[in-house]
Amino acid sequence: MAGYHVPPLEGLVEKFESLPGIGHKSAQRLAYHILDLSKGEAESFANAILEAHEKIHYCSVCCNLTDGELCPVCRNSARDKSTICVVEEPKDVFALERAGEYTAQYHVLHGAISPLSGIGPDQLRIKELLARIDGSVNEVIMATNPTVEGEATAMYLSRLLKPLGVKVTRLAYGIPVGGDLEYADEVTLQRAMEGRQEL
Amino acid sequence: MAGYHVPPLEGLVEKFESLPGIGHKSAQRLAYHILDLSKGEAESFANAILEAHEKIHYCSVCCNLTDGELCPVCRNSARDKSTICVVEEPKDVFALERAGEYTAQYHVLHGAISPLSGIGPDQLRIKELLARIDGSVNEVIMATNPTVEGEATAMYLSRLLKPLGVKVTRLAYGIPVGGDLEYADEVTLQRAMEGRQEL
Repeated sequence: MAGYHVPPLEGLVEKFESLPGIGHKSAQRLAYHILDLSKGEAESFANAILEAHEKIHYCSVCCNLTDGELCPVCRNSARDKSTICVVEEPKDVFALERAGEYTAQYHVLHGAISPLSGIGPDQLRIKELLARIDGSVNEVIMATNPTVEGEATAMYLSRLLKPLGVKVTRLAYGIPVGGDLEYADEVTLQRAMEGRQEL
Repeated sequence: MAGYHVPPLEGLVEKFESLPGIGHKSAQRLAYHILDLSKGEAESFANAILEAHEKIHYCSVCCNLTDGELCPVCRNSARDKSTICVVEEPKDVFALERAGEYTAQYHVLHGAISPLSGIGPDQLRIKELLARIDGSVNEVIMATNPTVEGEATAMYLSRLLKPLGVKVTRLAYGIPVGGDLEYADEVTLQRAMEGRQEL
């Protein structure tokens, strides 16, 4: 942009560009959109950012995001307390809740063990998970991602949890519903074959 | 998200979702990214939105976006004053400045004539353009988009401008550099043929 500089606009473009998955062109488009908003709309956008940042923190039980002391799942007395589903990120809870099948508790680790990125067990919410394992919990479901890091985390946790006398399970691997065998990768097909069930 | 509601988070996701080209999944990802920022970073993001909105307005001459009285192009006394390039949007000015070929003035219409969307000549910055046509301007280049609306706008303006005694030109049509003849559409090829030049 030789010769053409509007600092407040460039500042806003830079901010949008710092977001994940937003390149320079998209950032420009978003910034122009913000300029087209009314003053009230722009203020409400800015406030939404500040408010989310100020009010949202971790649930004191499951470490998911919430604006109260407990998250809506932990607060809900109708949900089964005997099973905990361990996920990497808060968005995984949203995904599982959207599926609607699961009606018990969650625990959010906020990451996975990844020595290459310098993330060890101490940076994850593992202490909080272990503190929840008392007589009332009889199953912990590992729902970490099917990646090297997610697998390592699931293995690590299962070794910690089994001596405490709880059943540790893992989400099933297999071909995704609506997928096509032809395009499934070899490892997924192997796992799907291994995990075959009687009809 | 049956049973799982965190209003400040949902509010922020909604704000991002209202931006052009951002779907629900991307909006969620952006909102989570905002939560991961430090308090200072989130405040600076919110401020960038407010500041851009507050400080940026139209240049009093060319109607481009600026934070001063005049935009950097109109302020620059080294630029040729005898030619005005008419574009639809501020981002078109950025695109042309990036190309670096053009060293004269711009005029931003902030849209194109589009009866279907209810945009007539009165909603565009045409009055401001006509006010700039005095003895010192001898050429107006139409650089509106090669769409039906852009073409109509260019035709409309050329009919207004020609009686004022200025030369009105249009950006060349043709095959884009680096493009492939095989994939060029018929109309573009026709225009490229019509506009052929001697080597």
